[in-house]
Amino acid sequence: MKLHGYFRSSAAFRVRIALNLKGIEAEQVFVHLRKGEQKAAPFVDLNPHKLVPALEMDGRVLTQSLAIIEYLDETHPEPPLLPREPLARARVRSLALAVACDIHPLNNLRVLQRLKAMGHPQAEVDDWYRHWIAVGLEGLEVQLAGDPQTGRFCHGDAAGLADICLVPQMANARRFDCDLSGYPTLRRIEEACLAIPAFADALPERQPDAEA
Amino acid sequence: MKLHGYFRSSAAFRVRIALNLKGIEAEQVFVHLRKGEQKAAPFVDLNPHKLVPALEMDGRVLTQSLAIIEYLDETHPEPPLLPREPLARARVRSLALAVACDIHPLNNLRVLQRLKAMGHPQAEVDDWYRHWIAVGLEGLEVQLAGDPQTGRFCHGDAAGLADICLVPQMANARRFDCDLSGYPTLRRIEEACLAIPAFADALPERQPDAEA
Repeated sequence: MKLHGYFRSSAAFRVRIALNLKGIEAEQVFVHLRKGEQKAAPFVDLNPHKLVPALEMDGRVLTQSLAIIEYLDETHPEPPLLPREPLARARVRSLALAVACDIHPLNNLRVLQRLKAMGHPQAEVDDWYRHWIAVGLEGLEVQLAGDPQTGRFCHGDAAGLADICLVPQMANARRFDCDLSGYPTLRRIEEACLAIPAFADALPERQPDAEA
Repeated sequence: MKLHGYFRSSAAFRVRIALNLKGIEAEQVFVHLRKGEQKAAPFVDLNPHKLVPALEMDGRVLTQSLAIIEYLDETHPEPPLLPREPLARARVRSLALAVACDIHPLNNLRVLQRLKAMGHPQAEVDDWYRHWIAVGLEGLEVQLAGDPQTGRFCHGDAAGLADICLVPQMANARRFDCDLSGYPTLRRIEEACLAIPAFADALPERQPDAEA
């Protein structure tokens, strides 16, 4: 099994956490996004969407981090990354998707590059980044803080799919110096996650392709 | 069961299709996004993310269209919206997420409004819209056209989760006069879907809150 990723991709970061939690060994293949390696052969033949991560195995390629993680959870059930009960599964998926659909896509590299190409200086690109982080984390904080189903982690007392999405998003927010003081529940959950080696070992700065 | 949505929301459109395919009756509650009703009470108390759709039932509220649709699929298994085999499920989810994470979030109303607030005239906002449609649909066309698992629909010969995401995205593309000539596979699948009443009845222009 080969994980094609990039240290700073938060979607790849999610898959790294899931592999670590499951105890699955995967060879890491590094696709340098800032050099544009995702847009050229050989990677583009693996994923025509030109995005990491991609999980390659036995001649098959899986793309989209949440699809990959659900696949890993279905084929390696322990520890489970989703609860069993349908309403609880929907809650966890909604938290994960709030990050994966409503925060991260607005702030990934190709979007920031597009804004620069449209004439926005770095300060305005940074404002864009922080705006969508603030909007998304505010919603998550209210959703999590007001719900007794929230425990030590996003759902109860075991880390799962929602935490796997939250932690990389918080890391991105910190990298762009976003003010996180308004999200005590998110910070508490992030701290609980990063105390687990499966999360901490997946941090961007601990990857072999990490750069300053 | 109440579906809080808006005729033109493509995420609500997805849930409408899924409810129709499952034959589930839900009362529609209309949240007028252009008037900002999603940002105020009573809706914001249902979904702190201030986005439609939200599915309300028995005092619980589910958010995020894909989480809602997976819930409906788990609790109303017929007809299935995902295949059974894990690799096939991952393929279908990756197609759905390619729309839900990589096209739609860049083009929804709040993003277009933000671009206008940053000083971009309508023509540049339209360019932004068409750019992300083209990037995303190009990836989907290559992914689908090159794979023998693609059938009459995105995966085999039964409509499912990927089709549920594709059709609303194609409708959005048409609304913004995007050139769809380069995506023959997507157009063929869209046509096959719209021949099914569950899809056609969910079209924005057929909803009670539709406007010109």
